Amino acid sequence: MGYYQAAKLTTYIIVLMFREISLQGIAGSFHDVVRRRLFANSTFWPRLRFPDVFQDLSDKNADYGLIAIENSIAGSLVFNYDLLAEHPYNIVGEAYLRINHCLMALPGQAIDDINEIWSHPMAIYQSQKFLNSQPFRVIEKEDTAGSAKLIKDLNVMGTAAIASAEAAELYGLELLARNIETDPNNYTRFLILSEKNLAIEKVPIGQKCSLYIRFTDKAGDLHNFLAPLQQSGFSMTKIESRPKIGSPWHYDFYIDIDFTAHNNEAQKKLINELEKRCKHLRVLGIYPTFGYI
Amino acid sequence: MGYYQAAKLTTYIIVLMFREISLQGIAGSFHDVVRRRLFANSTFWPRLRFPDVFQDLSDKNADYGLIAIENSIAGSLVFNYDLLAEHPYNIVGEAYLRINHCLMALPGQAIDDINEIWSHPMAIYQSQKFLNSQPFRVIEKEDTAGSAKLIKDLNVMGTAAIASAEAAELYGLELLARNIETDPNNYTRFLILSEKNLAIEKVPIGQKCSLYIRFTDKAGDLHNFLAPLQQSGFSMTKIESRPKIGSPWHYDFYIDIDFTAHNNEAQKKLINELEKRCKHLRVLGIYPTFGYI
Repeated sequence: MGYYQAAKLTTYIIVLMFREISLQGIAGSFHDVVRRRLFANSTFWPRLRFPDVFQDLSDKNADYGLIAIENSIAGSLVFNYDLLAEHPYNIVGEAYLRINHCLMALPGQAIDDINEIWSHPMAIYQSQKFLNSQPFRVIEKEDTAGSAKLIKDLNVMGTAAIASAEAAELYGLELLARNIETDPNNYTRFLILSEKNLAIEKVPIGQKCSLYIRFTDKAGDLHNFLAPLQQSGFSMTKIESRPKIGSPWHYDFYIDIDFTAHNNEAQKKLINELEKRCKHLRVLGIYPTFGYI
Repeated sequence: MGYYQAAKLTTYIIVLMFREISLQGIAGSFHDVVRRRLFANSTFWPRLRFPDVFQDLSDKNADYGLIAIENSIAGSLVFNYDLLAEHPYNIVGEAYLRINHCLMALPGQAIDDINEIWSHPMAIYQSQKFLNSQPFRVIEKEDTAGSAKLIKDLNVMGTAAIASAEAAELYGLELLARNIETDPNNYTRFLILSEKNLAIEKVPIGQKCSLYIRFTDKAGDLHNFLAPLQQSGFSMTKIESRPKIGSPWHYDFYIDIDFTAHNNEAQKKLINELEKRCKHLRVLGIYPTFGYI
């Protein structure tokens, strides 16, 4: 067995061993869709809230946590940024998922048989144009996939859920319409969190670095901080400010930098330089990006 | 009548004429508390949602709109930033309100008589420590002041609302506890919007400028943009990024600059210089800040 094959076998074993994922939502939720596409044959802990995902990592219930961090229409999930800062876990990967909303109901019904729609408020909001086209009664529920499951469990005729196509398949519902979202530019960015190395077989398309930064709050802090990026040809892909708790109208920052096409030495040099230009810097992760999955 | 007196009289007439305010919430809501402290003897339109406030300005139903823009614990109201960019109204003033949550019920009851609490989810969240101290049943409602009004209207004994002290007074409820918020550093920043000049008699403590900026999305855009601030001794007080709709993972920016202690000429020069360093710049307002009211 050559070196290459041995390495492949090792990777394979790691994939088999490390595959418990904690995520927000039940089977068929968009978080679960990401898990299915990234982690082959993994099992998962369905959680109600994002802090539960961090708790699973802390209790060593799960090898990886999967959290949404921003949506291309709604913006950042700011409380998840706060959770990142509060917990010691690293970002070990990221991926983008196109959010396709589908309409689904118990088999044997047509759209005209449907008079009530169940889904999460965000899915309802994002499918408003479609929903306005017919006189549906729209009921907000906690969850997209949960709405599909409820229709199946309670055997409710005349009611449809808005959820992922995967949810329809999982809960034995029939798709009545696909891609009912008003804006097709609807993507969510997900982060994989862990204390462990990444063990998925997908090929990354690039590399990113995420930083959490606290300044002394002098004028020009941010401008000074960004100077080394430009000098070394690095590009900032995202900046997010969050209130510094206890200091009203002062902010902490979360900054993402594109690390693709920069070698280790240049990356280290940049981080060293950035550290000198703020009060506190934490590298939240240097990680592969898998792009659109 | 000297010039000074004539000017005062004019101000007085303007105050009397321009005093219809549109805001989110009913009487006794935190928006309404801000209105009462800033606009003496004004009347107001209680609205359900923030877009309704902008609609009132557009329909000329109201002279001023009052919107919360950020909270020192929860962060920015990001959809209100989007509304600022979508509408042509100027920011004409800002003020900060300490958010004091109070517990209130129909008269003649003690805390031990209370077994159920009604309020808005954010007020509940911010009063968690107090709520955990007793075995209350907690019910989420749409509104803080609305919960107080409902207790009064339905004459519900044994139930208390979390709302402002002003709501207790307005709806004839008795305060059972004051300042039940867990974190005392709880402030909300409010903006006054209008097409008209500001007509309130409070003395400002400073001046701010708010900008909406779109870049061409080249590396170093933000760093280049911020350079003239530092060169001219201006200080950025806030930066907010929001998704550029239709361009996933690209962002528009909202930046606040402290204009206090800089003369008109320096302010104009700065804005001219900043305009050259981005694709699109809109001055959302150069306005007085009234600080903590």
